[in-house]
Amino acid sequence: MFKRILAAIDGSEQSMNAADVAISLASKYGSELTVLHVVVPFTFNDERNHPGTGLEEEYRRRIQEQTGKWFEGIKRKAGENNVKVKTEWTETSGPVQYEITRYADEQKMELIVIGSKGRPGIERLYLGSVASAVLMYASCPVLVVR
Amino acid sequence: MFKRILAAIDGSEQSMNAADVAISLASKYGSELTVLHVVVPFTFNDERNHPGTGLEEEYRRRIQEQTGKWFEGIKRKAGENNVKVKTEWTETSGPVQYEITRYADEQKMELIVIGSKGRPGIERLYLGSVASAVLMYASCPVLVVR
Repeated sequence: MFKRILAAIDGSEQSMNAADVAISLASKYGSELTVLHVVVPFTFNDERNHPGTGLEEEYRRRIQEQTGKWFEGIKRKAGENNVKVKTEWTETSGPVQYEITRYADEQKMELIVIGSKGRPGIERLYLGSVASAVLMYASCPVLVVR
Repeated sequence: MFKRILAAIDGSEQSMNAADVAISLASKYGSELTVLHVVVPFTFNDERNHPGTGLEEEYRRRIQEQTGKWFEGIKRKAGENNVKVKTEWTETSGPVQYEITRYADEQKMELIVIGSKGRPGIERLYLGSVASAVLMYASCPVLVVR
């Protein structure tokens, strides 16, 4: 059971709690743990954006930097619990939730651990729309952490 | 983590899978496991029901008998995994999902394990309405099992 665990994170407090729970479960079950951050592509705002400003590269660089910090903390905790963790970030032009479930299916994950709400501004609902949709479309068990 | 686990069951295949997962987790974490079945009260159908037929008692007796069988199977599996399990059924006049989350709060549960869909005829959706609402209102992590 739970041989392969996927924790989907976005830097929110809930998703970081989800990563902690995933590490604990991976430690108990001897699972392979993957931590995934799905990046939404840089979207042009026609009124504000001037093409050629190079902001898209800057956006990617900053995301990489930010995500790198999240991953670093998670890797440290995983190491303390003797859990091997693979970190990954993917960019998708579709909805984040589909990318999470697609990745989980492709990688034959046996459990998805996810935060109940995402970052403010992205998720406003009590149960985030990403979490809800992952629950709908996942083909494996889903653990929603608060 | 997960010192007290609640598995909510309704006899559906998914909820029985949820009970199996809850037993596994309780075994790994040394948790106290409670298995709960929430009973919807006997509702009168004015066109068909004649008062005084004693069907309400019969309804309760049959539920008790049916639930007893579910609990028996779960207790056996728990025993095989050295997990102590408390089984309980409660009747509520409100929605099942509120009773599950109310019970979880009252009993200070640290994890709710639930099936993604309930029995056919009660739950028709891909993600059952009970599971959705438990996810909304629970104050602890929720694991949705398929």
